[in-house]
Amino acid sequence: MRVIGIDPGLRNMGWGIIESVGSRLTHVANGTCKSDGKADLSERLLSLYDQLNDVFQTYQPDAAAVEQTFVNKDAVATLKLGQARGIALLVPAQAGLRVGEYLPNAVKKAVVGVGHADKKQIGHMVGVYLPGVKVHGPDAADALAIAICHAHHCQSANHLSRAVMKAGA
Amino acid sequence: MRVIGIDPGLRNMGWGIIESVGSRLTHVANGTCKSDGKADLSERLLSLYDQLNDVFQTYQPDAAAVEQTFVNKDAVATLKLGQARGIALLVPAQAGLRVGEYLPNAVKKAVVGVGHADKKQIGHMVGVYLPGVKVHGPDAADALAIAICHAHHCQSANHLSRAVMKAGA
Repeated sequence: MRVIGIDPGLRNMGWGIIESVGSRLTHVANGTCKSDGKADLSERLLSLYDQLNDVFQTYQPDAAAVEQTFVNKDAVATLKLGQARGIALLVPAQAGLRVGEYLPNAVKKAVVGVGHADKKQIGHMVGVYLPGVKVHGPDAADALAIAICHAHHCQSANHLSRAVMKAGA
Repeated sequence: MRVIGIDPGLRNMGWGIIESVGSRLTHVANGTCKSDGKADLSERLLSLYDQLNDVFQTYQPDAAAVEQTFVNKDAVATLKLGQARGIALLVPAQAGLRVGEYLPNAVKKAVVGVGHADKKQIGHMVGVYLPGVKVHGPDAADALAIAICHAHHCQSANHLSRAVMKAGA
């Protein structure tokens, strides 16, 4: 199963793609979609949409997950993030994928083992899970962490459904 | 010039289209794109995108404007609105249109004459500007008000640029 994780943001939208076979994870690609802060908002969203769409066309992921962020700083920042997040959710939905959503703490817990890990720890653990990976930047690292979290989650769900089927058989 | 106004919302996204010839405005169509509150967020955004895209395909507007809303109630509501707003901005950008953005007070001032008008007054004035219009609901009425505001704004900008050209000639 090929999993894409997306860390939404209006200026920098990180993405990371991994391949999950059984319990083995391998790195496929990662990067950051960027938008020009001086452009009109609608143009920025269109640019992010086009870039993310290209990623989907190129790598054809089978599963997708997006970070469920809340910015509490101020309403303006939250609205901006929401707009970028709308694009991050739309593109996988157009590809026919259900989108997993995880709170940052759940991602950290799945990848680092604790819910209050910092960026450095996440970057380190992404390297442990995906040996030799070259990460494009902090947003791409977060996106890979989201993909790892979703791969784990899908695996557990599969194990559970198999166990339930066996118990029912 | 055919102008679409969009009042973004995750549950109800109002839209209203008018034709502006000189200072004369006529109603073309209005409606509300709806999404199922029980569906996944990404599916809801996809549904809104498809519905709004259909409106653009059917009516081919030349200009677009979206309300610049801030929800200060809580971060969750603001994030939801932001996501819907991302779709409302993406669709016109994909159609190659620059998107006008107006604060609710600016829309009210342009349509009713004062910045603190209520929904009832807006609905009334929309009927005055567009005689005989049948409005689909309050979100569609707001969307028509946004379209009227944008038509006025474009007209003033045209007048101004003509005056500047004359002054320069």
